[in-house]
Amino acid sequence: MEKQRLTVIKVGGKIVEEQETLNRLLDTFSTIQGKKVLVHGGGRSATRLATQLGIESRMIEGRRITDEAMLNVVTMVYGGLVNKNIVAKLQARGINALGLTGADCNVLHAHKRPVDKIDWGYVGDIDKADGNMLATLIDKDIVPIMAPLTHDGNGNLLNTNADTIAAETAKSLSPYYDVTLIYCFEHPGVMRNPDDSNSIISDINSSTYKELIADGTISGGMIPKIDNAFDALRNGVGKVIITKADAIDGVKGTRIAL
Amino acid sequence: MEKQRLTVIKVGGKIVEEQETLNRLLDTFSTIQGKKVLVHGGGRSATRLATQLGIESRMIEGRRITDEAMLNVVTMVYGGLVNKNIVAKLQARGINALGLTGADCNVLHAHKRPVDKIDWGYVGDIDKADGNMLATLIDKDIVPIMAPLTHDGNGNLLNTNADTIAAETAKSLSPYYDVTLIYCFEHPGVMRNPDDSNSIISDINSSTYKELIADGTISGGMIPKIDNAFDALRNGVGKVIITKADAIDGVKGTRIAL
Repeated sequence: MEKQRLTVIKVGGKIVEEQETLNRLLDTFSTIQGKKVLVHGGGRSATRLATQLGIESRMIEGRRITDEAMLNVVTMVYGGLVNKNIVAKLQARGINALGLTGADCNVLHAHKRPVDKIDWGYVGDIDKADGNMLATLIDKDIVPIMAPLTHDGNGNLLNTNADTIAAETAKSLSPYYDVTLIYCFEHPGVMRNPDDSNSIISDINSSTYKELIADGTISGGMIPKIDNAFDALRNGVGKVIITKADAIDGVKGTRIAL
Repeated sequence: MEKQRLTVIKVGGKIVEEQETLNRLLDTFSTIQGKKVLVHGGGRSATRLATQLGIESRMIEGRRITDEAMLNVVTMVYGGLVNKNIVAKLQARGINALGLTGADCNVLHAHKRPVDKIDWGYVGDIDKADGNMLATLIDKDIVPIMAPLTHDGNGNLLNTNADTIAAETAKSLSPYYDVTLIYCFEHPGVMRNPDDSNSIISDINSSTYKELIADGTISGGMIPKIDNAFDALRNGVGKVIITKADAIDGVKGTRIAL
């Protein structure tokens, strides 16, 4: 039997934290055919709340050091404010959204990242995404809205990178659906020249990827994103696309293939 | 066919906001046989966060006026901090908990309370609890953990009294299960003399209720709680018990009957 289509979309904090861009995103998200999952960030709001509470945000390579006070902040912002507002706004659009952290229904089990040179605090690396449980919900026409939080099974929530959650979720759902994973960022795709929106690279495969890194076209935060994409493709995900939030119907952007 | 037993337990903020009492509650909750639902408060944490953010908490008759800033506070505290910590702690106890606001899966649809003498702001009165959706989840051995938030179907979250959520949830589940509703508060039951824990009134029915109000034994915040209880009983709930959090196995306390 042919598998049903399912789209996992990851959007960063910037898009979901401003009402106008959020509303536009959710309008587009509502029109996507087939089963779907939304994974969101929320870092800017977390930083803002932390500042208001006199808690310092410490970032290393764009990743947040998460002590106990900061864990409470991200639990409130990611799991509460951002997630539940998205859920309410999608319900208003006729989408049966359900907000989830990794602790809910144990969908994302993780472990606290071991202390090496850096003590990241309550940051989680994922052990298992429960695709079976997610598919059970999705088959009831429920649309999971996933906050970037996991748990360790010992009662602790853990702050976890949303790109990784999207990739692990997509992988875990690939036995059940024909999965497309879409990473949204600020540009319409991976570009040869960041100042020229006509320079989108339409396809990247393992061999062109190496060349694009070697010649400096791809660098910085894009590398872990594309690494996640290849990992997903090697683990059953059918298609990975990197594009802008207003193009999550998946026809534009950069397509990653093995 | 005989219906399965289901227990809806409502616990107030005080119990879930202190680690020691919360852990004890969750230990007991984990041992309850049959299907179950937990409804929680979180008012003290909301007030604390609001104070830290310079937002004034305004209460009338123990109920919170909820302007936009306060709605964000309760969304963070009820939907995020309190709810997700309970979920993670129950997962650690082998309970497949799922945190829900009323927006999640549209389980609690409400409307903003009309402005009369008081403008309560973003406070919701419940129109419908979706027992069918809840039962679908519960039949998968999922244990709903419900935050005191509903939504209006137009994209707005609404602050809603947890006692009422517990009663509406219990009523909505009564076509599917043999439902017991347990309200936890600071005393082991409704007492004739608040200073004498041996003065618990073991049973209250409609006629003794009137007498207990008339002679002043029952007053204040206990009246809406017992009104909720009778409403639940008239709408299919099998049993309502008012007791202390450490007695949620339902064998002690005050039993309300029609």
